Amino acid sequence: MMRRKIRMGMVGGGPGSMIGPIHRLAARLDGEVELVCGAFSRDLERSRETAESLHLPAERVYPDYRAMMQGEAALPDGERMDFVAVVTPNDSHFPIAKAALEHGFHVLSDKPATKSLDEVEQLAASLQQSGLLYGLTHTYAGYPMIKQARSMIAAGALGRVRKVLVEYPQGWLAEAGIEAHSRQAAWRLDPNQAGVSSCVGDIGSHAAQLSEYVAGTAISEICADLNAVVDGRQMDDDATVLLRFENGARGVLIASQICAGEENNLKLRIYGEKGGLEWQQHEPNTLWLKWIDRPTEMLRAGGPGLTELALANCRTPGGHPEGYLEAFANHYRNFAGQIRARLEGRAATAIESDVPDIVDALRGMRFIEATVSAASTDQKWHRLPALMALENQL
Amino acid sequence: MMRRKIRMGMVGGGPGSMIGPIHRLAARLDGEVELVCGAFSRDLERSRETAESLHLPAERVYPDYRAMMQGEAALPDGERMDFVAVVTPNDSHFPIAKAALEHGFHVLSDKPATKSLDEVEQLAASLQQSGLLYGLTHTYAGYPMIKQARSMIAAGALGRVRKVLVEYPQGWLAEAGIEAHSRQAAWRLDPNQAGVSSCVGDIGSHAAQLSEYVAGTAISEICADLNAVVDGRQMDDDATVLLRFENGARGVLIASQICAGEENNLKLRIYGEKGGLEWQQHEPNTLWLKWIDRPTEMLRAGGPGLTELALANCRTPGGHPEGYLEAFANHYRNFAGQIRARLEGRAATAIESDVPDIVDALRGMRFIEATVSAASTDQKWHRLPALMALENQL
Amino acid sequence: MMRRKIRMGMVGGGPGSMIGPIHRLAARLDGEVELVCGAFSRDLERSRETAESLHLPAERVYPDYRAMMQGEAALPDGERMDFVAVVTPNDSHFPIAKAALEHGFHVLSDKPATKSLDEVEQLAASLQQSGLLYGLTHTYAGYPMIKQARSMIAAGALGRVRKVLVEYPQGWLAEAGIEAHSRQAAWRLDPNQAGVSSCVGDIGSHAAQLSEYVAGTAISEICADLNAVVDGRQMDDDATVLLRFENGARGVLIASQICAGEENNLKLRIYGEKGGLEWQQHEPNTLWLKWIDRPTEMLRAGGPGLTELALANCRTPGGHPEGYLEAFANHYRNFAGQIRARLEGRAATAIESDVPDIVDALRGMRFIEATVSAASTDQKWHRLPALMALENQL
Amino acid sequence: MMRRKIRMGMVGGGPGSMIGPIHRLAARLDGEVELVCGAFSRDLERSRETAESLHLPAERVYPDYRAMMQGEAALPDGERMDFVAVVTPNDSHFPIAKAALEHGFHVLSDKPATKSLDEVEQLAASLQQSGLLYGLTHTYAGYPMIKQARSMIAAGALGRVRKVLVEYPQGWLAEAGIEAHSRQAAWRLDPNQAGVSSCVGDIGSHAAQLSEYVAGTAISEICADLNAVVDGRQMDDDATVLLRFENGARGVLIASQICAGEENNLKLRIYGEKGGLEWQQHEPNTLWLKWIDRPTEMLRAGGPGLTELALANCRTPGGHPEGYLEAFANHYRNFAGQIRARLEGRAATAIESDVPDIVDALRGMRFIEATVSAASTDQKWHRLPALMALENQL
Repeated sequence: MMRRKIRMGMVGGGPGSMIGPIHRLAARLDGEVELVCGAFSRDLERSRETAESLHLPAERVYPDYRAMMQGEAALPDGERMDFVAVVTPNDSHFPIAKAALEHGFHVLSDKPATKSLDEVEQLAASLQQSGLLYGLTHTYAGYPMIKQARSMIAAGALGRVRKVLVEYPQGWLAEAGIEAHSRQAAWRLDPNQAGVSSCVGDIGSHAAQLSEYVAGTAISEICADLNAVVDGRQMDDDATVLLRFENGARGVLIASQICAGEENNLKLRIYGEKGGLEWQQHEPNTLWLKWIDRPTEMLRAGGPGLTELALANCRTPGGHPEGYLEAFANHYRNFAGQIRARLEGRAATAIESDVPDIVDALRGMRFIEATVSAASTDQKWHRLPALMALENQL
Repeated sequence: MMRRKIRMGMVGGGPGSMIGPIHRLAARLDGEVELVCGAFSRDLERSRETAESLHLPAERVYPDYRAMMQGEAALPDGERMDFVAVVTPNDSHFPIAKAALEHGFHVLSDKPATKSLDEVEQLAASLQQSGLLYGLTHTYAGYPMIKQARSMIAAGALGRVRKVLVEYPQGWLAEAGIEAHSRQAAWRLDPNQAGVSSCVGDIGSHAAQLSEYVAGTAISEICADLNAVVDGRQMDDDATVLLRFENGARGVLIASQICAGEENNLKLRIYGEKGGLEWQQHEPNTLWLKWIDRPTEMLRAGGPGLTELALANCRTPGGHPEGYLEAFANHYRNFAGQIRARLEGRAATAIESDVPDIVDALRGMRFIEATVSAASTDQKWHRLPALMALENQL
Repeated sequence: MMRRKIRMGMVGGGPGSMIGPIHRLAARLDGEVELVCGAFSRDLERSRETAESLHLPAERVYPDYRAMMQGEAALPDGERMDFVAVVTPNDSHFPIAKAALEHGFHVLSDKPATKSLDEVEQLAASLQQSGLLYGLTHTYAGYPMIKQARSMIAAGALGRVRKVLVEYPQGWLAEAGIEAHSRQAAWRLDPNQAGVSSCVGDIGSHAAQLSEYVAGTAISEICADLNAVVDGRQMDDDATVLLRFENGARGVLIASQICAGEENNLKLRIYGEKGGLEWQQHEPNTLWLKWIDRPTEMLRAGGPGLTELALANCRTPGGHPEGYLEAFANHYRNFAGQIRARLEGRAATAIESDVPDIVDALRGMRFIEATVSAASTDQKWHRLPALMALENQL
Repeated sequence: MMRRKIRMGMVGGGPGSMIGPIHRLAARLDGEVELVCGAFSRDLERSRETAESLHLPAERVYPDYRAMMQGEAALPDGERMDFVAVVTPNDSHFPIAKAALEHGFHVLSDKPATKSLDEVEQLAASLQQSGLLYGLTHTYAGYPMIKQARSMIAAGALGRVRKVLVEYPQGWLAEAGIEAHSRQAAWRLDPNQAGVSSCVGDIGSHAAQLSEYVAGTAISEICADLNAVVDGRQMDDDATVLLRFENGARGVLIASQICAGEENNLKLRIYGEKGGLEWQQHEPNTLWLKWIDRPTEMLRAGGPGLTELALANCRTPGGHPEGYLEAFANHYRNFAGQIRARLEGRAATAIESDVPDIVDALRGMRFIEATVSAASTDQKWHRLPALMALENQL
């Protein structure tokens, strides 16, 4: 029997969506995932337009996510979607994911996982019950040189990690009144759709996840400063969070949406006893290794000196730059690998398993809520609360 | 009736191929092209392996390109491939493309177009007779910031172009004996498969095409120095070509496969009366504009200040880097647009038409042959011969 | 009468000193300052060795700073030094500067100004009484592109300043036990010689001064996290300080001596309503201007678009890089200009006056002490205390 | 007896000079050289103005270089200058240097050494007769990371050198008519003052010297393309020269003054069997080492991994950037060391001897003349003529 593609349904990503098309580009790249159905918009007409532009048959377009779950669940095994990609604004991530799990579908969700810590704890419980798969598209963890950094630190190349600097300056919300003419801005600055935070929820959570993923140790305490810099904002558009990690390392996380003129300038630096590493998303194929006692080295995607994990996430030889879409596609390909492993009745490989998951989801929502809470007091340090779901051995 | 995908057949790209998988990644990305059949290898068994990994039905795998042309031509309109992607070593580009045209299929070919100028002149004649479409995957012309550079120069932003510097250092053939353990090296260094040149044919031709595409003027005279640097090589692995352009501009083209330690470091600089521009493939989302009388500007893919042509070839907002596969995919998407325009009975748009074509193919083969010829004499300057096919109003 | 050089005496800078030779290089560069005497070491023999290597006559070498002040004060007007350069470890800055003022000599001191806020308040009082000149060598404020940044912000180019990011990672103290084999490390990690802080005193104070100098607004509140990262250290080797400025801007200051593999990587970013700027000391001749609505610009020392203040601090045309010594020399040349203005009975020009002074000294010591104090509590925000000396209209 | 400074007289460098002040900054930096006399301008009044601004006594200002040689020769041993710095336009370098040698003074000359190959051959003969010292300020050879590159190649780090790429684009002569309002442009574009070439003489000669100095092998054959790009120019403002070196290596030298928007963007790349190196003058403290089989390394001035020759030409620790003036000053300091060695009756050290000298002068003038000559024919390759002076065992 022919090896088949993994079948995806999508909720969200209709006309005007920014992240929906990105998910579809990423899903397509490796030819392992096939979009088979969708509920792209609350407006069925617009949803159908999207479907047509995607060469999708009209009968697989659904008026909403509930109809999609039911409709797909009713299809025969050889047609039914395998997983749902959730690409809506934050407030609906949880109900959609929950419904998917209830109907037996795996979930690959955009971040943040839910609108609150409480919701993600519920989601974790549903997952545990269902035994289904869950992935969270923290894109930046999909870059090969980030994976290189993670594996080098795990192997002790830097010695004990002492200091983590992660920063994520953007400028797109620097202009007052931007929400009036940008739909992307409007929902992110609306607490009803975005949740308790704009800046920490949207980009600070990426920075936190990335630093934990690479450093190989979790944030345990925070000191938070959140600001609504642009006049008239209800929500934070700027955040600095001092970090303490479980292994004793110190850190600083800077996230801001009002750094006028910045694009999407995520940067990570980690220092250990023997040296440090540096990675910047604008030039993602380069990883700098700085040493105490010898010249700085520049590792390159596709080049010499890479670990197995990094190489498995490169598609091109050195000097043929990959980018954001390829990092995103790595999550899709690896998550599809997990599903395929289930179909084939085998355990997922280490490379397939390397997708942000419910643990990242729990930690992320905890980080968002704890940051907002800590920022509201004049007490400096706050220990992050224990995660019920994690203690129940997820 | 549902808008359908454009259907592709592929010749070449079996196990061990480097460029075949790249073509498939590029073809998939935008969801406009569907791989429907292939003759991936001369060994049918290996061809079938490739097909299976690509989720392709066994009946659409052919033992060779002739069988594929015949088989597909015999299929009904709604199933038959629309175009053939030619991704074999250089020596078979011409016969495959010719057969495709004879059976009524459009052709998207890897470069160089053929093995000789004579062949490409024949190909041009076939094209003219058939009225079919032909594209040539000079990848680097697909980058959005290259398109930005082209449109700015065409609009006179730099004034008259005076000087063109294009360089393409690679290091992968620096090691003596590399052809013994690299299939990619072996065929490129074998005159029977590669044609008259290794270095100029493989990468010098990219550099020449890119400089003409951006400068908006054609190379008219050359002074060539070709070297076989590594002991025991029959073919050039290093080339420098001084250039004169039709508009009077001077230029230098440096291509080398023995610049030990270099990846794929294509770089283009063009200077006019008012300023200059610079672009480097390793960081392809940035275009530098240097001015006589004001600060240097950095234009960014997805950022402010882009022309329509550049923006139409960006998929992501600024700061979400695109790379080599996206540049490649632009050619696929734009070429598919040309085919779709035919299907829809309309003229292709300027953006769809912006794919390297038979004119680039003719110029490229002329450049390769003229360079090899010019390098063999101690006369400095050589005027490029007229192209018969071009004079016949192609 | 011939225009004469300004005469300098130096305290400190004997064998093994790092910063003494730097001061002398800087003092020499422009030919406006002449070293005429010194007390280079507590060991007279070593002091004489230094003097001889500097082509200085033996009679102008003094056993200690007190003898130097007295000896020079006793010389005739045409021979006596004009000012004292203080280049000893921190603990002796104050007594030396005080003695100089008491004997009628201007002072150019290495930073930090003194060992405590109390001392610098006393120094400010002495200065006010004496009417003499005082300069503080915050080197980084001497770079032309920093002056460009300052004048552009002052002229409103960025709109209101909203966010200041300043970071100063070094790696030279990352190694445990370094103080046993580095004299530079030993005194900086010894509270008796360095004062209350190692990291904030040595480099954090530079970062704070630079951010205030460029942003054109003073730090008003801080939240401080100081760490002794390397085992066995009594003093901070790592610091993060959250900042609030008088104009309402937010900021983050990161200073660390344990970022293994970093050299001296001072970097400043300031964001306003219309755009941001970025400067990095490792490539000091470039200033980046990032704009909300148009391409990023790269301003260059000696290039087009510079303000008068920046140009007056450039010696070479664009593309002839100046560096650390030239930035340092700008302070010497400008301070010598202040002295010359006195000699000529005129007011100093704006360019001559542009040297860090007692106000920077007061703010610097306040910052150091307040940071150490704030770091010792779990209260987040601390308002900086008022400066007595400043209130007395210095 | 006190160790004294080395005494310098200067010819040229009066009001409006660009390179004169640079020489003086460089001469001052290390405190080893003292300017004691000068003939700064053909106009005595202007010469006196310069002298006064330099704190030089009126009696040591001379109406012309002949008067200076005679006047200084007549002074007692303890006052007389030791060497002459020649900083006039090209046409007078030779007569001044010759006169200096005839009066017993060492010479440190700006480049090119003379106006013609014939002149420099005569100069070489005078030098041999006199036994005096001669240095040539090819500034870029003074950079520490260039010295690092030279010593690494000499030690075989790259294996046999195969390919040399040196480029020197400037944009300052891109504008037509610039000579009407720039004195620097006027004399360089006037054959009577500049010699047979503008671009090759002014900057191509730097590039040639630098490539030979670092590669450790001399240029033996050339193929030259010289252009007068801007309308109305008599002399070349743009040059490309293909190179063959004595060791068999190939090279390309690009020099241009019409690359609009470029500053002074000298860049050198050299590739051997095992790897390559890259250095760019705009960021001169970094040397890139690219390897066939391991990650690229970044060596830094003042950092780990430097050779003795490189370290001896650094003044500051890593991360405290040095620049153009320090590179220039290295030549002054090292040349002064040669003179001091004579005064002390000892041989100069390897570091003192490492200053471009009469061999570079001979090769430079040969290169300039041969390039102009080769550019005038349609023969591709030209062997450089033998140098009489060199054959006479200089």
